[in-house]
Amino acid sequence: MVNASSSLNAEEYKSRASRIVTVFTDCDGVLTDGGVYYDSKGEAMLRFHRRDGMGVERLRSQGIEVAIITREASAIVEQRAAKLQIRLFSGVRDKRAAFPSILKEMNTQPDACAYVGDDVNDLELLSHVLSAGGLTAAPSDAATEVRQCVHLVTETGGGHGAFREFCEWILHLRGASI
Amino acid sequence: MVNASSSLNAEEYKSRASRIVTVFTDCDGVLTDGGVYYDSKGEAMLRFHRRDGMGVERLRSQGIEVAIITREASAIVEQRAAKLQIRLFSGVRDKRAAFPSILKEMNTQPDACAYVGDDVNDLELLSHVLSAGGLTAAPSDAATEVRQCVHLVTETGGGHGAFREFCEWILHLRGASI
Amino acid sequence: MVNASSSLNAEEYKSRASRIVTVFTDCDGVLTDGGVYYDSKGEAMLRFHRRDGMGVERLRSQGIEVAIITREASAIVEQRAAKLQIRLFSGVRDKRAAFPSILKEMNTQPDACAYVGDDVNDLELLSHVLSAGGLTAAPSDAATEVRQCVHLVTETGGGHGAFREFCEWILHLRGASI
Amino acid sequence: MVNASSSLNAEEYKSRASRIVTVFTDCDGVLTDGGVYYDSKGEAMLRFHRRDGMGVERLRSQGIEVAIITREASAIVEQRAAKLQIRLFSGVRDKRAAFPSILKEMNTQPDACAYVGDDVNDLELLSHVLSAGGLTAAPSDAATEVRQCVHLVTETGGGHGAFREFCEWILHLRGASI
Repeated sequence: MVNASSSLNAEEYKSRASRIVTVFTDCDGVLTDGGVYYDSKGEAMLRFHRRDGMGVERLRSQGIEVAIITREASAIVEQRAAKLQIRLFSGVRDKRAAFPSILKEMNTQPDACAYVGDDVNDLELLSHVLSAGGLTAAPSDAATEVRQCVHLVTETGGGHGAFREFCEWILHLRGASI
Repeated sequence: MVNASSSLNAEEYKSRASRIVTVFTDCDGVLTDGGVYYDSKGEAMLRFHRRDGMGVERLRSQGIEVAIITREASAIVEQRAAKLQIRLFSGVRDKRAAFPSILKEMNTQPDACAYVGDDVNDLELLSHVLSAGGLTAAPSDAATEVRQCVHLVTETGGGHGAFREFCEWILHLRGASI
Repeated sequence: MVNASSSLNAEEYKSRASRIVTVFTDCDGVLTDGGVYYDSKGEAMLRFHRRDGMGVERLRSQGIEVAIITREASAIVEQRAAKLQIRLFSGVRDKRAAFPSILKEMNTQPDACAYVGDDVNDLELLSHVLSAGGLTAAPSDAATEVRQCVHLVTETGGGHGAFREFCEWILHLRGASI
Repeated sequence: MVNASSSLNAEEYKSRASRIVTVFTDCDGVLTDGGVYYDSKGEAMLRFHRRDGMGVERLRSQGIEVAIITREASAIVEQRAAKLQIRLFSGVRDKRAAFPSILKEMNTQPDACAYVGDDVNDLELLSHVLSAGGLTAAPSDAATEVRQCVHLVTETGGGHGAFREFCEWILHLRGASI
C-alpha cells in the first residue's frame, strides 16, 4: 500500500526508482519477523525468508546492491549476509548518525538509496532517505509511527516476504520484467 | 483495546501510569507466543521478540524498570533476562503469594506496579495489582478469563509485540514522546 | 464450535464429561502445529505450547489423566511426555487396532475416554471413541474429514492451544471452577 | 481454488489426474513456509509439515511417486527426503532446462507429471508441465505471477499443508477414497 501522507506522483516514484543503486535494510523485524530464538546459551537462531534472498539476486541482476544496517551485533546475521553476499553494518546504535560513513563505504549518494525499517530507531534514517530523494518502506507489522512515514507499507510482514515485496516494487517502477 | 469492565476514566489511567516504577511481566505467552521448542534432550529453545527488548529500553529511559515473574525455572529465560539486563523471578508457583517479597526485593509498592499475564495462574496477581492501584494487561491471545479482568488487551499476541504495546501504552499515558 | 452433525444434547455432553478418566491426544498437529524442524542430521525439534501443559495439570487436579497416542517414534516427544508426566504410546501405526491394549494399560474403558486428533489416521479411533460414549475433538486446522466427525472443533489450531481448549471444555461440562 | 485463467473442464482434470505417476515439488515455500533458520554457523534448520509426509504416503499407496526439485543444495533437505523416501534433485539453478534429464531418471513423461512451486524461478517449469498435459499448483502465499498461472491455488500456505492439499486434490480427481 502506497502511503497517502508520504505519497509522490507516479513520475516521481519512477524517477526515484531509476536512480537507486543501493537498497539498505534493517534486519530484525524486516528480514525476520522480529523473533529471536534463545537456547540456554543465549541467542541461538534467527529466521529469515528464502524469498527475500531471491529479491537480493533480482536487484543485483539490475545493478542494485543490498546492504544491512542493524543495531545488534550478531554472528547469525553475519552468516545470513555472507550467504546473500551483501554488506553488513552491525552494532549501529544511531543509524542516522552513521549513515554518511556508510554511504561513503558503499560509494553511493542519499538520493540513490532506498531504506526499509520497522521500529522507532529507524525513524530518523527513514525520514532522511525520504527527504533526500530516496525510497522508503516498512513491513505491514512495523510500528505505527514507522508505517506512517514511509512511501510503501508492504502487504506482507517482516520475515514473511516484506523485503522481497519492496524489491519487486522498485523493479516494477523501473520497468523491469520478470 | 481498553477493557470495558475494568475501565477507568482517562485521568485515573494517567495518574496510575505516572506512578509506575516497575513493570512486571509473565514470560511464556507474553514475552513468547507460548511455544516451547523441544529437542531430544528436552526444552531447547524459546522464541522472544526483538521489539519487546526495545520496550524495556524505552521504559528504562523513563526511569521504569522491568522484571519477569515466571512459573518455570529455565536457563533459557535467564539468558533472555541477562540480555535485557532485567531481574528474573523464576520457579514461582504461586505468584500472588510471592509478590510481597518480590516487591521488597525490587524496593517498590503495589500501586507503583504494572503486570501483564496470559493464563489462569496470573489471575490472582492481576487482580491484586489492579485493585492496589496499578495497571494490568493481557495479550490478544490470552485465556478468556484473563482478558476479561485487565485494563488493556493488546492488539498483538504474546511473543509478537504484546509486551511492547503495553510499554507504549504506559509511555503514552505518561505523555512521553518518541 | 460444537459440531452439528455429531452434536448431542446438553445433558448427554455433561454425562459423558462426568465419566471421563483419560484424555488421549495425538501429538503432531494437535500438541504441535504439525511443524517438524529438521537440521542436517534429521528431525531436530518440535514446538509445543505451554498452555497445553497447564491443561494437563488442570485435568489432573480433577482426577483425569492424559496420554499421547502417536504414529511417530521420537525421542523429542518422549521428552515432552516426561515433562508433562504423562504416558506416551508411540510408533502406533494403527491407532484403532492398538486401542484395546492401550485401554488395558491405562486401566480404563472406552466410554470413559476422550480423544483429540487431526488427520485421516485418527478417523477410526475418533469414530470408535465417539460411538463408545466418549468425547472427541479436532483442532481448527485439522483435516476436513476429521473436523466433520468430532464433537468439538476448537477455535485455536494445533500447537496454539487446541488441546487446552478441549481440556477447558471438558472441565466446564463437569462444572469445575477455575 | 481452481484458477479461472488456467481452468480446464472437469473431464480434463480427471483425465490428467488419472495419468499422473510423479508429483514433483519445490522445497522452500512449498514444503516449508519459506523460513530459513540461521545460527552462528549458517543455515541450521528448516521447518516441514507432518501432514505433507502423510500426503506422500497416500500418493504412494496409489502408485504415485513424489520427488523434490530445488535450487538450493542442503543437507537439511536431504534428511527430509530420506525420511519421506523420495528422490531429491537439488542445486537445480534452471529447473526447466534440467527437467528432461530429471524425467529420464524418474522414468516418466511430462504429461504424467504434476508440479507445485511458489516463486518466479518455478514459472517456466510450471508453464511447461501445464502445457504438456500435467497438473500444476501453488500455495496460497506464492508469488502473484505463480498463482496466476497454475491450475490450483491451495487454501493453505507453504509449509502449512499446501503440498498435502495438492495431493488430496489429485487423489479426489482420481476418485480415490480416504
